[in-house]
Amino acid sequence: MRDGYSDALGNLVDQLAKLPGIGRKSAQRLAFHILKQPDKEARLLADAIVEAKEKIRYCKLCYNLTDQELCPICSNPDRDSSTICVVEDARDVLALERANQFHGLYHVLHGAISPMDGIGPEQLKIKELLQRLQEHPAEEVIIATNTSIEGEATAMYLSNLLKPLGIRVTRIAQGLPVGGDIQYADEVTLARAFEGRWEI
Amino acid sequence: MRDGYSDALGNLVDQLAKLPGIGRKSAQRLAFHILKQPDKEARLLADAIVEAKEKIRYCKLCYNLTDQELCPICSNPDRDSSTICVVEDARDVLALERANQFHGLYHVLHGAISPMDGIGPEQLKIKELLQRLQEHPAEEVIIATNTSIEGEATAMYLSNLLKPLGIRVTRIAQGLPVGGDIQYADEVTLARAFEGRWEI
Repeated sequence: MRDGYSDALGNLVDQLAKLPGIGRKSAQRLAFHILKQPDKEARLLADAIVEAKEKIRYCKLCYNLTDQELCPICSNPDRDSSTICVVEDARDVLALERANQFHGLYHVLHGAISPMDGIGPEQLKIKELLQRLQEHPAEEVIIATNTSIEGEATAMYLSNLLKPLGIRVTRIAQGLPVGGDIQYADEVTLARAFEGRWEI
Repeated sequence: MRDGYSDALGNLVDQLAKLPGIGRKSAQRLAFHILKQPDKEARLLADAIVEAKEKIRYCKLCYNLTDQELCPICSNPDRDSSTICVVEDARDVLALERANQFHGLYHVLHGAISPMDGIGPEQLKIKELLQRLQEHPAEEVIIATNTSIEGEATAMYLSNLLKPLGIRVTRIAQGLPVGGDIQYADEVTLARAFEGRWEI
C-alpha cells in the first residue's frame, strides 16, 4: 500500500502518471474513473494500447506511422509524388492534412538536428530521404520543420544537401498567424513577416 | 482510417479521449507518447488497467476501494473503531489520510443525495452504514461530506437518522481555507467562518 492506495490501484496511478502532462492528481482522477467504468470499457482501453503498439510501425517510404507496409498517404495513387513535404514528427502530418493544402507525399524525420540534445543528422531519417529521392526522384522538397532553432538548422542542413542534387527546395512561409495581433506578435515573427511580404 | 490516422492509432486515440479531462488533442499526444515508448512500458500500462479492474473491489466494511476483503484501514488494529468518518468518495479517504488528523475508520457513501440527478439515500451506502453501526457500535460519526448543497443535504439526512440511535454526530468545520484571503473569500464561506468562530 502506497499513499493509502491498494497495490493494484497504486500501480495503475503510477503507470498513468508516467504519461506526459499527467501529474499524480490527474493520474488518480483517471484511475478512479477507470475503476468506475464497466469492465468492458477498461478492457477496450487496455486492448487499444496493446494493439496499437503491436500493429503500428513506420511506413517504409515516408516513416509516418501506419498499420500497413505503406501509410494511407503513400499508397494513395491520387497524391502527387513529385512533391515531398519534410516534417519533424508524425503529428505534423496530421496537422498539415487537416489544413488540406498539400496533396503531395510526406517524409517524417522523427526529430530535428539538436547538438545540445546530442541529435545529429544521422539520428534522423535523412539518409532514408536521400535514398528515397534516388529511387523515386521528386521535383520539389518542401521543408516544413518547425520554426524553432532546431527546425531552422535542420531546414538549412537539408537545403545544403538537396540543392546540389538539382531538386527545388522550398521552406514554408513564416509570418503573422491568421487572426494574429501585430501588437502581441514577437519581434522575430514581425521581422519574418516583413521579409516575406508579397505584392497584393 | 479516421482523421488521417491508421485504424489502430485512431482506436487508441478514441479510447484515450473517453477519459475525463482528456480532449482529442491530449489523447493524440498521449497516443503518440505510448507509441514512442518501449513495448514493455505500454504493456505495463495496459496490464495495470486490467489488473486494477480485476482486483479492486469494495471493502466489505467501509466500501473504500481495496484489493483485499477488508481495506488496509479497516484491517489495521491500531485504528480507533469507535469513530467513523463518513465521506462521499474513496478519493476523500486519501485526502483525509494525507491530512493525518483522523485515526478512526471511514465509511464511503459513493455519492451524495441529489434529487436533481435522481440520487436518493437508497443509491448510497447508507443502509450499509446503519447495518454496520448495529454490528459494530460507534461512539461518534463525523460527517465529512462535501460542503456543496448535496453534501449538506446528505449530512442533514444522516444526522436525522443517526442521532435517534444515541450516536454522537458531528460535522467537519467550515470556514476560510488556511492561507485564504478574506477579500477573495465568498460570502457564504465568510458567514460560516463567523458562525464557527472560537475563543483564542
